Amino acid sequence: MEIVKVNSSKINQVDFDKLPFGSIFTDHMLVCDYKDGAWQQPIIKPYEPFMIDPSAKVFHYGQAIFEGMKAYKDEQDDVWLFRPKQNFERFNKSADRLAMPQISEDIFVDGLTTLIDLERNWVKKGVGNSLYIRPFMIATGSGVMAQPSSEYRFMIILSPAQSYYSGDVKVLVAEHFSRAANGGIGAAKAAGNYSGQFYPQQLAQQQGFQQIIWTDDTTHTQLEEAGTMNVFFKINDTLLTAPTSERILDGITRKSLIELAKSEGINVEVRPVLIDELVAAAKDGSLREIFGAGTAAVVSPIVGFQYKEHYYELPKTSHSTALELKEKLHHIQHNMVEDKFGWTTKV
Amino acid sequence: MEIVKVNSSKINQVDFDKLPFGSIFTDHMLVCDYKDGAWQQPIIKPYEPFMIDPSAKVFHYGQAIFEGMKAYKDEQDDVWLFRPKQNFERFNKSADRLAMPQISEDIFVDGLTTLIDLERNWVKKGVGNSLYIRPFMIATGSGVMAQPSSEYRFMIILSPAQSYYSGDVKVLVAEHFSRAANGGIGAAKAAGNYSGQFYPQQLAQQQGFQQIIWTDDTTHTQLEEAGTMNVFFKINDTLLTAPTSERILDGITRKSLIELAKSEGINVEVRPVLIDELVAAAKDGSLREIFGAGTAAVVSPIVGFQYKEHYYELPKTSHSTALELKEKLHHIQHNMVEDKFGWTTKV
Repeated sequence: MEIVKVNSSKINQVDFDKLPFGSIFTDHMLVCDYKDGAWQQPIIKPYEPFMIDPSAKVFHYGQAIFEGMKAYKDEQDDVWLFRPKQNFERFNKSADRLAMPQISEDIFVDGLTTLIDLERNWVKKGVGNSLYIRPFMIATGSGVMAQPSSEYRFMIILSPAQSYYSGDVKVLVAEHFSRAANGGIGAAKAAGNYSGQFYPQQLAQQQGFQQIIWTDDTTHTQLEEAGTMNVFFKINDTLLTAPTSERILDGITRKSLIELAKSEGINVEVRPVLIDELVAAAKDGSLREIFGAGTAAVVSPIVGFQYKEHYYELPKTSHSTALELKEKLHHIQHNMVEDKFGWTTKV
Repeated sequence: MEIVKVNSSKINQVDFDKLPFGSIFTDHMLVCDYKDGAWQQPIIKPYEPFMIDPSAKVFHYGQAIFEGMKAYKDEQDDVWLFRPKQNFERFNKSADRLAMPQISEDIFVDGLTTLIDLERNWVKKGVGNSLYIRPFMIATGSGVMAQPSSEYRFMIILSPAQSYYSGDVKVLVAEHFSRAANGGIGAAKAAGNYSGQFYPQQLAQQQGFQQIIWTDDTTHTQLEEAGTMNVFFKINDTLLTAPTSERILDGITRKSLIELAKSEGINVEVRPVLIDELVAAAKDGSLREIFGAGTAAVVSPIVGFQYKEHYYELPKTSHSTALELKEKLHHIQHNMVEDKFGWTTKV
């Protein structure tokens, strides 16, 4: 793989104790173009803006998909990826749904590994520290006819990340707005799934809520995702989460938490979770926890939810399953315990 | 407004008798950036690629909206726009839904007018010839945190267009896939609404259909749009089309055709149209026509539809309401008849 290095790294200008999420990028990026029906040679080069035509299809018809992943450094200075093949496979599923070309494991996984190896100084030790990895593909072909592009660009950019405490997260259960249609692209990690979330989320924020719990768009009774994360509920001693569907992202943190919880002897039920059930459990005291699960925050505990103008506060707990699972997952990701699941890969 | 002109026009290199839709652009474009909470000065400059950061939010979270419009030239060499204020207002509605900033009429309409005035040689006489206008806005702010961008770019690009005959259009009624959710962004002219259509359309094309008639995502019984157009049905002597909703684009060709048809004494019903009704009308012979309506093709007659593995061929007609309305609209757009609706604006 061709590698063009920066003349001097900007790493010394970065305050690693004060990293706003996703806004500082490392020195290099991976770029690979698709044209004439084939992926061209990938190149690793300095991170920088690039030229694109105003009529590029990504601007007009939204052909754009991505993944979110993280790399972690252990105490021996080894760098680890968490289930990268899962992201690679999901990326190609998203590509299929958006009529974009499949990418090879060589370019995605090997390219990623080469890039991270080059940037390993950007991965800092310590639980909570990580290097956020953003592989994405956009339609670069020009022309405003509404049809799939014939040219694409695959890129990987990297952003150092810290664990952050976002304050108490209160959520609003969606009664009108939706993130995905039946027969739509909700299961794909597609740019178009996010653009419609900002406005409802702004309305929720104006009412004092940090996130929205998305419901099915037909009945608004099934609890499906929390913001840009999958969502879990703990009622009595059982963890509940919705099954994946064409409306719900097949989250890798989600599936890892399910497996991890089961291995800890926690009862997990993967089935539709209804708002009536949640309200009843909040009222009778059996609702113990709600939390979001995703790559960026890993686990994000929720302190209460609002539905039909009524706010339900969750009880304080001295034993949070959310935080317990988060810690166990962190330990695996940082190679601090034996990885009996085979989830981690050394770079 | 600052105008930077090209040194020499490329217009002489263009074969105006052989124009593939939306792939050739004029010499100039309008660019206006939004930052620090305000739109900056717009500039008209040579059409060319531009620089953008790999982490620009349009690539990751799909904040991108557009409009489609046309300019026409009459026999006196005057150039006309068709209902530009409608597009301007719809653009700002789309911006709202995607948490993007409103744009002023000064920048959108006056900018458009100045740009088209500069490019008036690109607008060719003759019914069917036009200059396709693509105003669009994209999120250019950098950073992969999932929140609305703080920087945007508004652009207008222009592409000369001819009328084209796309052959017989057979359509497949969607029984599984959908273009929009209840509570989603289907009513916005947003890039994210198109990215999910390509894959189902490719599947339909493999079965010999040129377009899909989109249905509601809950029951798949309401006929809502045809491809990227609104859709009309003629049963007996009545024109039917679905009411606009948060799933259906408020098409300007659609609303103009409704008004035009009514003024011609045609009975028009704006109400949900059900697939069962369409099948029954096809069977008893009362289904006369189906056609799509949109800026690019204006009116696109459909020769038959398939639903549940059964293909329904429409009768040939010597008196096509679709083509009659298309011709009348063309005559208004090209200033060939009195515009009693007040739809046209001279550039």
